[in-house]
Amino acid sequence: MADTSNRVRESFAQQQFMKTLGASLLSVKPGAVEIGVPFRADLTQQNGFIHAGVITSVLDSACGYAALSVAPEGAGVLSVEFKVNLLSPAVGERFVARAQVKRAGRRVTVCAADAFAINGGEEKLVATMLATVMTMNER
Amino acid sequence: MADTSNRVRESFAQQQFMKTLGASLLSVKPGAVEIGVPFRADLTQQNGFIHAGVITSVLDSACGYAALSVAPEGAGVLSVEFKVNLLSPAVGERFVARAQVKRAGRRVTVCAADAFAINGGEEKLVATMLATVMTMNER
Amino acid sequence: MADTSNRVRESFAQQQFMKTLGASLLSVKPGAVEIGVPFRADLTQQNGFIHAGVITSVLDSACGYAALSVAPEGAGVLSVEFKVNLLSPAVGERFVARAQVKRAGRRVTVCAADAFAINGGEEKLVATMLATVMTMNER
Amino acid sequence: MADTSNRVRESFAQQQFMKTLGASLLSVKPGAVEIGVPFRADLTQQNGFIHAGVITSVLDSACGYAALSVAPEGAGVLSVEFKVNLLSPAVGERFVARAQVKRAGRRVTVCAADAFAINGGEEKLVATMLATVMTMNER
Repeated sequence: MADTSNRVRESFAQQQFMKTLGASLLSVKPGAVEIGVPFRADLTQQNGFIHAGVITSVLDSACGYAALSVAPEGAGVLSVEFKVNLLSPAVGERFVARAQVKRAGRRVTVCAADAFAINGGEEKLVATMLATVMTMNER
Repeated sequence: MADTSNRVRESFAQQQFMKTLGASLLSVKPGAVEIGVPFRADLTQQNGFIHAGVITSVLDSACGYAALSVAPEGAGVLSVEFKVNLLSPAVGERFVARAQVKRAGRRVTVCAADAFAINGGEEKLVATMLATVMTMNER
Repeated sequence: MADTSNRVRESFAQQQFMKTLGASLLSVKPGAVEIGVPFRADLTQQNGFIHAGVITSVLDSACGYAALSVAPEGAGVLSVEFKVNLLSPAVGERFVARAQVKRAGRRVTVCAADAFAINGGEEKLVATMLATVMTMNER
Repeated sequence: MADTSNRVRESFAQQQFMKTLGASLLSVKPGAVEIGVPFRADLTQQNGFIHAGVITSVLDSACGYAALSVAPEGAGVLSVEFKVNLLSPAVGERFVARAQVKRAGRRVTVCAADAFAINGGEEKLVATMLATVMTMNER
């Protein structure tokens, strides 16, 4: 389990785009991963909300790492596809994406993830993802 | 039509996140929008490919603006949801997202978009999106 | 609430296709609806499992009615889109689709639903849906 | 190619649910499959339109068989997931689902499909699907 968590942390540290977004890995448990991202003006869309693509990026990484956290040792994961529903404008001080494995298979793992806006300590659901992740044997 | 195109260009210019990605609006026609984004190391995931979230961000913006390009004057658009299939690793010098309106409705417009990697002048399909956009009367 | 439940029951009774599938409305609560469907050889695909389309049909109806159960009086609902992940072969004596409202909005309601195969009293998750339903004022 | 087409025709003939719907295989080409289904009162939802689940069922089968038509000999296919947008009420004398392979991979094939209502010889787009199909070596 410590190994699993390390594997996720090492991979996350190599995602340059997560650094660009200011995202951080908040928690890694078997089958469950949390990623946070702060509000920043340079991540907004035309109305001043966080761009759907930013929220989707952290949801996608959270789903991929939730799948990786339950994958066999030495295996890698690859996002095959995902669907996102944007439920409320992404307004808040910061945002957290929480992914959970819904079904882990030998080849395909399905994850569900919710994104919340955090404002004055209160959380509001702003988006939800359903994602298909493929598990691959690495070299 | 000139007005429609201007409306899209003005809104795009206000998307701070597109600037952060280095994305640019390549073409706006009624019902069809193209957005380009260059390869940059700070947009990559753990394998050095462009992060799925970057590709999704430009696909989402392209779909939203394709919908806006056919919306009534004074109307705004909002992404309700989208689904993305990641078809090939996003490797290339630059990437282009091409969105087209599939069906424009009074309240709901559905767009399809493809993302291509461009390498030495050759294009390769790397992702495809199907998106639902809502049209709203702005006050 | 009694009214809400009646509204769902009346509409369900008019879905000829649910009769064709042998489906029945198992439970209606505000924001949560369950629909059951038995195994029948004439609902199978080439491997003898229940066809994904059958499971999707009851998931879709369950999502629509979950949305209707929280809609204003006199409003109607319409499925805008849905995504289904097929998690395991649909093998069992009967199947149940359980839908819940994830976010109810004035115009758009998002529902999540799971389908389970029931065999010897045991339940197994076989599919999951994320659906967008539009609420409309009826004449 | 004749073999590919036969393989699809044989599998389709074993889908009991397609018979239940009155669906028929209209055309099979490498990477492209068409399935038709007539209007029938017992396939309708509460407003008298064809149920979204019926349209989805033929779209799903069409996508699966489009993937099978390009799969290696002896391989089988399995729907992993799909997303459907319902674009217009399914009103018509009959309906046709047209699926095309968007990208064929060794393990994962992605298909896009449109469903049309046919009325007095005229076609109207009523739904669109984006589907992920897995290719498996059969024993």
